[in-house]
Amino acid sequence: MEYVFSDRLKALSGTATREILKLTQGGDILSFAGGLPARECLPVGDIEAILQELMQSGGLARVLQYGISEGTAALRAAFGRVFLEDGIEADPDETVIVSGGQQGLELCCKAFVNRGDAVLVEDPTYLAFLQIVKSYEGRPVGVRSTDEGLDLNDLEEKMKTLSPKLLYVVPTFSNPTGKTYTAKNRRALLALAERYGVMIVEDDPYAKLRFSGQPVPPIKSLDKTGRVIYIQSLSKVFSPGLRVAAVAAAKPVAQKLVVGKQNTDLHTGALSQYAAQRFLESGKLNQNIAAGIHIYRERKEAMAAALDRYIPAGVCTRTDPEGGLFVWCELDKRIDTDRLFARAVEQRIAFVPGRVFFADGSGGNTLRLNFSNAPPKDIDRGMEILGRLIGQTLANSAKISYNKSE
Amino acid sequence: MEYVFSDRLKALSGTATREILKLTQGGDILSFAGGLPARECLPVGDIEAILQELMQSGGLARVLQYGISEGTAALRAAFGRVFLEDGIEADPDETVIVSGGQQGLELCCKAFVNRGDAVLVEDPTYLAFLQIVKSYEGRPVGVRSTDEGLDLNDLEEKMKTLSPKLLYVVPTFSNPTGKTYTAKNRRALLALAERYGVMIVEDDPYAKLRFSGQPVPPIKSLDKTGRVIYIQSLSKVFSPGLRVAAVAAAKPVAQKLVVGKQNTDLHTGALSQYAAQRFLESGKLNQNIAAGIHIYRERKEAMAAALDRYIPAGVCTRTDPEGGLFVWCELDKRIDTDRLFARAVEQRIAFVPGRVFFADGSGGNTLRLNFSNAPPKDIDRGMEILGRLIGQTLANSAKISYNKSE
Repeated sequence: MEYVFSDRLKALSGTATREILKLTQGGDILSFAGGLPARECLPVGDIEAILQELMQSGGLARVLQYGISEGTAALRAAFGRVFLEDGIEADPDETVIVSGGQQGLELCCKAFVNRGDAVLVEDPTYLAFLQIVKSYEGRPVGVRSTDEGLDLNDLEEKMKTLSPKLLYVVPTFSNPTGKTYTAKNRRALLALAERYGVMIVEDDPYAKLRFSGQPVPPIKSLDKTGRVIYIQSLSKVFSPGLRVAAVAAAKPVAQKLVVGKQNTDLHTGALSQYAAQRFLESGKLNQNIAAGIHIYRERKEAMAAALDRYIPAGVCTRTDPEGGLFVWCELDKRIDTDRLFARAVEQRIAFVPGRVFFADGSGGNTLRLNFSNAPPKDIDRGMEILGRLIGQTLANSAKISYNKSE
Repeated sequence: MEYVFSDRLKALSGTATREILKLTQGGDILSFAGGLPARECLPVGDIEAILQELMQSGGLARVLQYGISEGTAALRAAFGRVFLEDGIEADPDETVIVSGGQQGLELCCKAFVNRGDAVLVEDPTYLAFLQIVKSYEGRPVGVRSTDEGLDLNDLEEKMKTLSPKLLYVVPTFSNPTGKTYTAKNRRALLALAERYGVMIVEDDPYAKLRFSGQPVPPIKSLDKTGRVIYIQSLSKVFSPGLRVAAVAAAKPVAQKLVVGKQNTDLHTGALSQYAAQRFLESGKLNQNIAAGIHIYRERKEAMAAALDRYIPAGVCTRTDPEGGLFVWCELDKRIDTDRLFARAVEQRIAFVPGRVFFADGSGGNTLRLNFSNAPPKDIDRGMEILGRLIGQTLANSAKISYNKSE
């Protein structure tokens, strides 16, 4: 039979990364497409110890029953202490536990975006956020970015003319570029948001994965009026599979997000919440990151070196992130990365073609590479294949131009 | 500062049960308000054994990483076998794992409901579904119910005149009434849905909690064309806190729900999925229910007897469910259960006043009582207090009438 789906989902198909993740679960593909933290850095032993202690103390039954939608008081308090390390003050009633950072983003759009509303994003930005905005029938609009962060002229122009509801940013080790906004840029964009009455959604899952350079304060730590909604996911520093994140927001906003969450899934899984709470309380979050961050540094350096070695000179401009999971490449204009991707998958390697990260679908010569989830020798092998494919594409394109000029 | 929330959430406040659940977490209140399964029936030992085996076999790391949005293949297959026991055939690609039945409902509305669309529900129905429909700016419309199920004349009339997108039903041990639709009524409403092109959402979290009478086939088992979306939650028979349920739907619908879920929370918690999978595979679901169902029977009988004993004769019409969690009371028209609730909470007992379950906010003389989560002696004590409060309310109302007639 024919199904008549809602307008909001009619045009929406699965996100590319999700579909690729499915593809790469086959196993024989070398994937630089996902956003998985390094297996070696997940605190498996700590989580085991937490589960053992819970069961031995007879506490399991307690976490099998229903809980409240905002999350357990103990976990909200534990997140409060983590926030404070970065200068963010959020009481438990300004904190909402969500089922991964993704749900935090979804609830922000649910609470603020009406059909047709403009939502500003960096170009390029986290592709799933673009999908979420569309699922609420909002209109994502890209803001140009610079080496410092957002292009403030473009941002102001768009705030002035489009009356956007939200500005969405991943200001530290951005997905997909790995870039970090300067403190000055953060202050300036907050001031613009104040002036034009725009809420900021600050998505901050990567900041703790810093392997060089100096920390930059979260925008939320500069916010005096409750204009910033801050989302801290534990997916990259604890476990993606357990689906735990926290949102810090002014109390009226937090309450609205809780109402949205009641409809969505009642509450975040109680066993996951418990494991996250005990892990944060143990103080092992920072210890664990400090012990493992050299793996990320090593892998990023391996990727940077391999890209420089294997990609023909002058063909690729890449970012050089100080943390996070991603390197971003802008290739010669003659290369279409959607087509490159199809050829790469034939060679059993994967990345994410860049178009999906742009609000307007531009960026056809860009791509995102994940460096966190493969050892250096695999990174080297993968980049060698990628470099060869790029070289071949350029050679073919030269031949075509030559033929055309005949 | 003033926040400008989206239209969809502007009018929506927290659901009554959620707020009450928070209230009753204080501890000194005797609550008949929630929908919690009996603590004694949660398979704590089985879940412990599953977690132990997972850790001992070194499998924990695997469930800490990201998974696919539709849920693990193993859990979908395990649900498929559970469905088959009730005559429902659903392949793994017609099955979507969701973070509790609530998320299944939310995804159905996300996939089908446009602003202004009519959505038919039984009057009264599960209150959170009314909230979900409103959060998608749909318009819930109540259909009258009879002892057999839905009033088919009223249903047809509303299908004909309102072109609803969905019909939502909890046909077995309904929330809030505890009533069960007859097989004949199910066939008839499916035929009407076929005739008028309406999708049916069948929410079936309670059917396995049958303590007397004979099972009635799920509507989904009668569906030959893919018109029914069937939601089977494990919250009442395994663990509410772990947030696991499955949706069975025709493949194009399942795919759309997966797209919706990608935006919502990427995937259901992997540790919860694993525990559910192993529990279903072990065959202990039915064993566990068979071993514990006498507790539900006992508690329902205690509640029925206490209501008959303590509520003044002729004042209360109540349902007599053969399973599930709830008894529904329709009181004398002079009693407003919102006001009764306020007085009940002063006496440290809680129930859910019935208005919230009606699409049009009627039902001011009705209330829902949960019998599963308190031992018989507490049920007796609670109903004694409730009966006394009802008696006092009627006496006061008589006095007022007497004064008025002076």
